[in-house]
Amino acid sequence: MAVYTHLDAATLAKLIGHYDVGTLIAAKGIAEGVSNSNWLVETTGAVTGAATRFILTVYERRIDLTDLPFFLALLDHLAAKGCPVPRIIPTRDGEAFQMCGGKAIALIQFLPGLSIEQPSIALARDVGRALAGIHRAAADFPLQREQTLGLPAWRAMVREAGDDRLAEIHPDLPGMLADELTHLAARWPGGLPRGVVHCDLFPDNVLVLDDTVAGLIDFYFAATDFLAYDLAVTHAAWCFTDGGRALRPDLSAALLAGYEEERPLSAAERAALPVLARGAAVRFIASRALDWIETPPSALVQRKDPLEFARRLAVYRQNGSAIFTSGNGSGRKRL
Amino acid sequence: MAVYTHLDAATLAKLIGHYDVGTLIAAKGIAEGVSNSNWLVETTGAVTGAATRFILTVYERRIDLTDLPFFLALLDHLAAKGCPVPRIIPTRDGEAFQMCGGKAIALIQFLPGLSIEQPSIALARDVGRALAGIHRAAADFPLQREQTLGLPAWRAMVREAGDDRLAEIHPDLPGMLADELTHLAARWPGGLPRGVVHCDLFPDNVLVLDDTVAGLIDFYFAATDFLAYDLAVTHAAWCFTDGGRALRPDLSAALLAGYEEERPLSAAERAALPVLARGAAVRFIASRALDWIETPPSALVQRKDPLEFARRLAVYRQNGSAIFTSGNGSGRKRL
Repeated sequence: MAVYTHLDAATLAKLIGHYDVGTLIAAKGIAEGVSNSNWLVETTGAVTGAATRFILTVYERRIDLTDLPFFLALLDHLAAKGCPVPRIIPTRDGEAFQMCGGKAIALIQFLPGLSIEQPSIALARDVGRALAGIHRAAADFPLQREQTLGLPAWRAMVREAGDDRLAEIHPDLPGMLADELTHLAARWPGGLPRGVVHCDLFPDNVLVLDDTVAGLIDFYFAATDFLAYDLAVTHAAWCFTDGGRALRPDLSAALLAGYEEERPLSAAERAALPVLARGAAVRFIASRALDWIETPPSALVQRKDPLEFARRLAVYRQNGSAIFTSGNGSGRKRL
Repeated sequence: MAVYTHLDAATLAKLIGHYDVGTLIAAKGIAEGVSNSNWLVETTGAVTGAATRFILTVYERRIDLTDLPFFLALLDHLAAKGCPVPRIIPTRDGEAFQMCGGKAIALIQFLPGLSIEQPSIALARDVGRALAGIHRAAADFPLQREQTLGLPAWRAMVREAGDDRLAEIHPDLPGMLADELTHLAARWPGGLPRGVVHCDLFPDNVLVLDDTVAGLIDFYFAATDFLAYDLAVTHAAWCFTDGGRALRPDLSAALLAGYEEERPLSAAERAALPVLARGAAVRFIASRALDWIETPPSALVQRKDPLEFARRLAVYRQNGSAIFTSGNGSGRKRL
């Protein structure tokens, strides 16, 4: 959460000058994004003279430039289909991004809304609906992007972290991850419906107005993968409380029911959810553990606790079948 | 440059609910401020329904709560007199700030404009006019605040930093500061016109639109002191180039001329400017050196180089009389 790139006013004005959005009248660096720097900018507007707001994004490390056309075209595709995602503003030359100082820069529609940390049941249901909505809307999206954060990457991250340093986070962590990676390799499903997945739909990537989803943002982990895996990631992100110790069965049932309102799961998808959810937990344990180890405690950047997902993993191990096989909301009594 | 306090959407909405500004529809933490955390917030507006923007400020360490009434009343006083400073939005109870989690919070008018790093001569002149404007407008401001960052504080900061660590920044720094503190103690003027001073009017605290000053912000170093000292601080902040190595005589003349358009200096003030400017340089050497020493290099917060002001001090020592005694802009030929 920082602004990594410095852009002075003259540079910002020059960058904005490449778009048909009027002239720049304000720009504030905002404390969002870990793989990019963002400015909330205001311009005089292209035609009406009414002030207009945008997010100017500078892509930093972690974003491969060759992936940008996928990410940006995806937003335009989803927005055109009515999904609540921000549009990309093309340059006067029709480009989705421009280069400045060797970094790619895009101008993105500003969406109002706030990220909610303690969702209501109604919101969890709406998040499910919105996730299924992007899965459906992207069905005819022509581009593909390989899932670079799948099982092989989890294994590589765990290896890179190393058992000694993982054990410093928690003594049980190395053994838990080794067991789990073996389990996942043996049980990971094949043949489920694939498509575009967001794969990072945490509450901070959902903008909410009036307890309803007003925006889905930050598609920079989007890839082509099992749609049900995206639902599992979203489940892990939204349906727990107490630092990952306890499932919220009401949120869980609402999220799944909302998803199925828009896109019913196949029997195979539903059967796979327990293992997909364990995979989702491992994915975030692994990346957070590596960040934890590589980020000095003195850095101002906030390290996210990998154990929050180790606890979710324990819940999924113990109750996964009950959580996911009980149908639309009826699982509440099983927990 | 960071957001130190975390406020979730529910807390933000509750805080905004204490003002007659409509309901919250967006909030972005912004990467500004070192002694406070700031959100750019948008609401539906109190009456018209038109979206309205504000800065929500959480006061962190370095701000003494007992100083807040001075800072906030000053903004209202200056805004009422037409100075380009943001108004404070009172709570429904008429309070200038509210408390949340032990921290003071104020809602402040959002002003458009951008901070300019490479000012034009016209802008330097306008900055001079704007500074004199607040000096004049504050003449009947009833509150006072002791200058806590004057000569005794500079001496204390230099002592706290310690010669060994100062010498690590530059071997000449301890001796330069010791000499200079002795010089300033002997030569610091008395009896100059006093009033409210901003004392931190760096380019990042000036918002610019169309090469004109549109906003003066961040009054959290404001105090009661010699008005000409504020001009000296602003001179040190605006009139140098090349990392403080070189004076920009054109900017210097323009700043001084602009100031005198609004508030002519007395002969005593003009005569004192060279020593006041040396003091201003020492003030920023001292505080930056202490920050430099106390901030780990690994921290994401940007340390400001104290040597940029040691170089300014060298320029003021060598040329101070020529810079400040040559009158409205005619000093250009002297340098």
